[in-house]
Amino acid sequence: MHHMREMISAHPDVRGNTNDALIRCIEECYSCAQSCTSCADACLAEEMVADLRQCIRLNLDCADLCIASGTVGTRRTGSNEQVIVATLEACAQACALCAEECERHASMHEHCRICAEACRSCEQACQAALQTFH
Amino acid sequence: MHHMREMISAHPDVRGNTNDALIRCIEECYSCAQSCTSCADACLAEEMVADLRQCIRLNLDCADLCIASGTVGTRRTGSNEQVIVATLEACAQACALCAEECERHASMHEHCRICAEACRSCEQACQAALQTFH
Amino acid sequence: MHHMREMISAHPDVRGNTNDALIRCIEECYSCAQSCTSCADACLAEEMVADLRQCIRLNLDCADLCIASGTVGTRRTGSNEQVIVATLEACAQACALCAEECERHASMHEHCRICAEACRSCEQACQAALQTFH
Amino acid sequence: MHHMREMISAHPDVRGNTNDALIRCIEECYSCAQSCTSCADACLAEEMVADLRQCIRLNLDCADLCIASGTVGTRRTGSNEQVIVATLEACAQACALCAEECERHASMHEHCRICAEACRSCEQACQAALQTFH
Repeated sequence: MHHMREMISAHPDVRGNTNDALIRCIEECYSCAQSCTSCADACLAEEMVADLRQCIRLNLDCADLCIASGTVGTRRTGSNEQVIVATLEACAQACALCAEECERHASMHEHCRICAEACRSCEQACQAALQTFH
Repeated sequence: MHHMREMISAHPDVRGNTNDALIRCIEECYSCAQSCTSCADACLAEEMVADLRQCIRLNLDCADLCIASGTVGTRRTGSNEQVIVATLEACAQACALCAEECERHASMHEHCRICAEACRSCEQACQAALQTFH
Repeated sequence: MHHMREMISAHPDVRGNTNDALIRCIEECYSCAQSCTSCADACLAEEMVADLRQCIRLNLDCADLCIASGTVGTRRTGSNEQVIVATLEACAQACALCAEECERHASMHEHCRICAEACRSCEQACQAALQTFH
Repeated sequence: MHHMREMISAHPDVRGNTNDALIRCIEECYSCAQSCTSCADACLAEEMVADLRQCIRLNLDCADLCIASGTVGTRRTGSNEQVIVATLEACAQACALCAEECERHASMHEHCRICAEACRSCEQACQAALQTFH
């Protein structure tokens, strides 16, 4: 995500005073959304798709929540902190469950192994960003 | 949303045993997303747009969370109840804050008055659906 | 979508002069997004999921484009007609392909039968709305 | 977007035979969505917000189409090339118009200058990816 820190720094209400944990979290959210969308489609293409139904569902839910979190987190400058907090909590939850499910298939499917890592990384970034809202 | 109840009833894991509070909630979520998107654009067109910045932001956040909730709620049939619960909680939060802000402008702007109603209605539908997950 | 026509009528740039074909189209878009999300998940739950992979993919693509069209169509008041036109064209395309695929499974799966109808209805509403932009 | 190329390479229908122009395009789409969401909110915070209404609208439309394109492009493995093509065309259109509008404000607002660059870069990546579908 080239430009991202510069973009946020250029915001009239931010002017250099960036929340670095939130910036990292936004980046992880968009990245994890892409991984989960990709993993859902790869699972769908596997011969054993019937065993991957729950993985596909959690991938899709996680992708939806990651996009919502990336967007709401980016649009942060008002006093909508309660909305960001609730959104990041839902996202962290979705990432944790999706990671857990993907980990079950990690030894058989490389896409699940990589996606589990992306979800864990995003979950941690959400938790770190949540620490800054108190 | 014609078809909605029929669609959900036709799901192999549901077969008639529908969660009516959740169905109503999904319907309200898509409807509220449309209202909030519309209110944001109407606020942007008002002469006094500078006084409506926070309203626009909350409208946009609320629309994003309503779409996420409508989608995740529709894709509910697995054992992803924790994700639904966290998503509906974030959505109810966003609806409550957006309603509160829109209510401040309701006497001056008809679109804010209608949108506040849509948000309150969606917030209640989320709360009612949340009651069913225990 | 209660409120929808009222919301759009209350927009400062619209004031009663609504584009009814566009309003119907927006409504169909949100409704079709819900049907496609629901059909994708129902297909995933079918025993013969392996035969429904392409249906699931087209359902998911169609849902994404319907939400984009409903949102961009709602946020229509500026001079962004070129964007609306291109978005509705992509949406009509996705609806046509998804309808065609769902029709193949309509005799076996009630959810595909209903979803095919929703897609055809949305495709026609997009075409009718496109006629108004010239 | 760490993992992205690896994720797509791990897909059973891809297995190393990646479409590099499409991969770059997907990356630009998520990145541009973030820039446009950020620019819309920064414009909203500017004192001269009334002069930036059209910029905000085009930013929001562009963000919506970039997410749709990133998602549909990622979920590419079936025979849904017609849907990808129509979606990338709509996205390239939205990027071009948003870039043009942002360029008008680039000398006054750093966020518009950066966002215009992100939109041009994404527009070109969409065009390059479109070349590969023939």
